[in-house]
Amino acid sequence: MRVTIFNEFHHERHHEAVKAVYPEGIHVTLGNALEKLLPGAKVRFATQDLPEHGLTAAVLAETDVLFWWGHMLHEGVADAVVERVQARVLEGMGIVFLHSAHYSKPFKRLMGTGCGLKWREAGERERLFVVNPGHEIADGLPPHFELEHEEMYGEFFDVPTPESLVLISWFAGGNVFRSLCTWTRGKGRVVYFRPGHETYPSYHDATVQRVIANAAKWAAAKSSSPFALGAPNETKPLSPI
Amino acid sequence: MRVTIFNEFHHERHHEAVKAVYPEGIHVTLGNALEKLLPGAKVRFATQDLPEHGLTAAVLAETDVLFWWGHMLHEGVADAVVERVQARVLEGMGIVFLHSAHYSKPFKRLMGTGCGLKWREAGERERLFVVNPGHEIADGLPPHFELEHEEMYGEFFDVPTPESLVLISWFAGGNVFRSLCTWTRGKGRVVYFRPGHETYPSYHDATVQRVIANAAKWAAAKSSSPFALGAPNETKPLSPI
Amino acid sequence: MRVTIFNEFHHERHHEAVKAVYPEGIHVTLGNALEKLLPGAKVRFATQDLPEHGLTAAVLAETDVLFWWGHMLHEGVADAVVERVQARVLEGMGIVFLHSAHYSKPFKRLMGTGCGLKWREAGERERLFVVNPGHEIADGLPPHFELEHEEMYGEFFDVPTPESLVLISWFAGGNVFRSLCTWTRGKGRVVYFRPGHETYPSYHDATVQRVIANAAKWAAAKSSSPFALGAPNETKPLSPI
Amino acid sequence: MRVTIFNEFHHERHHEAVKAVYPEGIHVTLGNALEKLLPGAKVRFATQDLPEHGLTAAVLAETDVLFWWGHMLHEGVADAVVERVQARVLEGMGIVFLHSAHYSKPFKRLMGTGCGLKWREAGERERLFVVNPGHEIADGLPPHFELEHEEMYGEFFDVPTPESLVLISWFAGGNVFRSLCTWTRGKGRVVYFRPGHETYPSYHDATVQRVIANAAKWAAAKSSSPFALGAPNETKPLSPI
Repeated sequence: MRVTIFNEFHHERHHEAVKAVYPEGIHVTLGNALEKLLPGAKVRFATQDLPEHGLTAAVLAETDVLFWWGHMLHEGVADAVVERVQARVLEGMGIVFLHSAHYSKPFKRLMGTGCGLKWREAGERERLFVVNPGHEIADGLPPHFELEHEEMYGEFFDVPTPESLVLISWFAGGNVFRSLCTWTRGKGRVVYFRPGHETYPSYHDATVQRVIANAAKWAAAKSSSPFALGAPNETKPLSPI
Repeated sequence: MRVTIFNEFHHERHHEAVKAVYPEGIHVTLGNALEKLLPGAKVRFATQDLPEHGLTAAVLAETDVLFWWGHMLHEGVADAVVERVQARVLEGMGIVFLHSAHYSKPFKRLMGTGCGLKWREAGERERLFVVNPGHEIADGLPPHFELEHEEMYGEFFDVPTPESLVLISWFAGGNVFRSLCTWTRGKGRVVYFRPGHETYPSYHDATVQRVIANAAKWAAAKSSSPFALGAPNETKPLSPI
Repeated sequence: MRVTIFNEFHHERHHEAVKAVYPEGIHVTLGNALEKLLPGAKVRFATQDLPEHGLTAAVLAETDVLFWWGHMLHEGVADAVVERVQARVLEGMGIVFLHSAHYSKPFKRLMGTGCGLKWREAGERERLFVVNPGHEIADGLPPHFELEHEEMYGEFFDVPTPESLVLISWFAGGNVFRSLCTWTRGKGRVVYFRPGHETYPSYHDATVQRVIANAAKWAAAKSSSPFALGAPNETKPLSPI
Repeated sequence: MRVTIFNEFHHERHHEAVKAVYPEGIHVTLGNALEKLLPGAKVRFATQDLPEHGLTAAVLAETDVLFWWGHMLHEGVADAVVERVQARVLEGMGIVFLHSAHYSKPFKRLMGTGCGLKWREAGERERLFVVNPGHEIADGLPPHFELEHEEMYGEFFDVPTPESLVLISWFAGGNVFRSLCTWTRGKGRVVYFRPGHETYPSYHDATVQRVIANAAKWAAAKSSSPFALGAPNETKPLSPI
């Protein structure tokens, strides 16, 4: 499996508190976890200040699953790159949006909705419950698991009804959230996974890493049935009219 | 119910064959049908060459359900109008896309996919089967109904899995199509209904008109529960942390 | 709308604490609420110790929406009545299962699953969040509402993926639950709504009553398109082979 | 993967025309195909006249995916076996229902609906279209494929809305059918695949065999997250109340 991890890589370079948690960047922590949990996976990184954000046509063509972490710089992502990402998803590339990527351009474009939610930074306890234990992304998960300190994201989460809802979060401060959702777009599989505020060590958590590895496995293309953009004129009928 | 019918209104003015079928425009035929079948409905029209295509913020604010028919001039629809339409859908305005509107800008934006399909202009027979007889849009429909001559649209139809699939079409030339699909986006209800090639009298057909009236009834907002775009910071927890 | 409310009517006659909350029975409290909120609705009652539990073929034939509350006596419901209820649902009768009816025979039969869940009687706070604000059952609801004391029901709730998920509950003791779910079976609409433990006054709560009235409106048949049980041999093709 | 193929094995022993097509029984043809296409798969057979129909608790405990073909003898399947099959599905055993198994007891029990459809034995052409090309069960399939002679099954197919709809059939005689549908029940994955009338050689067709092998791969359990029947009383809260 060929994984590309996009990270805007801003907080980790400019905020000491974040640098302390993810000294090499969130993408490196995620990449290490994926290489450990998915033997044979080949991970590469893309960060926002690279040319074309590191997401050239060549890179995307060689990517089975793209992870996306962004927060402050969503508007700086070039529309041409967003279109390219969408087109590759339709062709069958999997894509996993993490945490504040709910507001990224490619997520909004694939969802067709506003993608808003409520939030609160209080470092409160989050407890995630499995509500679809037969789903591949739930493999190896206990009935529920906890993160001691996280940012709260609360409903209403303005996304289309997920095709699969795998995790629902409970927050100590009184909110709930649909924390792991999946959709299909064209031949591509789309995942949203909630945790991962930059000031907390959630991506170092073993259960979170398991979810992320499972999400990569699930999102990678599973079918060689053809797909093509466009609207071909099939002038010859399949049966005589 | 306040209905606005958008029509690009090009074929009916420039092609004699189309003018013969819809002398006042497809929008007027649809509007007459809706006023007849939905007593009390107020219909207004919007055509593409009006300022802002007739879809000003004021018109949309007073619209419960928007119908959309377009074909040749999709690219000429202003992006600002597309964004305005999307935002109103998220707030709760219903929207019904007809026939070649599968390739319209607002449909693509709400779907997040390519929205392609196969097509053939051979005037072949189309037979539409009800596959969800309890759905409101199936009200009054027989198990199947026919259109003697229609353009063929064939799978694969590149849209997200519909939340409800109400009609599947059989075509004499050997294809099938998911012909009436619904989705939810924000608080808004989205319908796609396949028939209606401009050279055939499908919108004069009583059963087609029934589907269209049912679609308007179903798509109109049914809930006053609040919705707002954006991502509010709810600093005060609902329960003590 | 013709509503029939089935109640096993056991706790309210045999337990003083329950009698204090629902002196005439849960069914009467529900019936009064429905008559108040749905002008024109005709409500009748069925209790478990009536012949055929009050659910004769004649009663079901005249019922648009059936409510079901049961808890201790599920096994005492006759299988013939369960089959009759299922058949009427497939024909288009709506059915709303309340609270402990998750383990009733007709619910299990319509779901095809075990319908288990976790529970705790601690009188804890429940907060219900709207996660589908455009759904008819959310009409009039705020973004969230609370019940000060309720029994906890927690995930995993062993039901098929709901077609619509309208409410998710947060519990003070740390659990979450998919509290308002809908499904379609044949032409019939099925609702599950969580609150309503017999020792708490939840069915006297105005917002809960609003949900219940909305559920009745949503579940009532909306389509006259034909449905018939069976597998007819259609020997004559629709088109020449 | 451990596959068990249940076949009522009646037609192939009592009707010459069927014996000519499947001399060793449909189950043996299916088993040979699965062993060829899924290297390492272990196939065993169960036929209806074996004790417990060959579906003892021990056999089911060692089964990852159960195939089911039945037609004339559905009523002869013991209810205790049906309950055992359902319980294993909820635990995570995959199950694939073929053709006339739409009316088998375990399918009806898992669906909760009547499972009826229209049918016609005219040996007409069936053309199956992929409508979800990214689904694992579509892997290796062309956009459409044909069976020259098949029994017709037509809509309305009385099943709950499938979670995934992968194939839609076109029939020469004018009907359509949702021919490959999937559902989840508990942790179990359920597939219905339409072709396979006993008088036609459909299970010798390479593309049909590919679908069947893909269905087995998809239906096999993918998650070790725990599932248990029942409704445990979790008296101790997860967070202090």
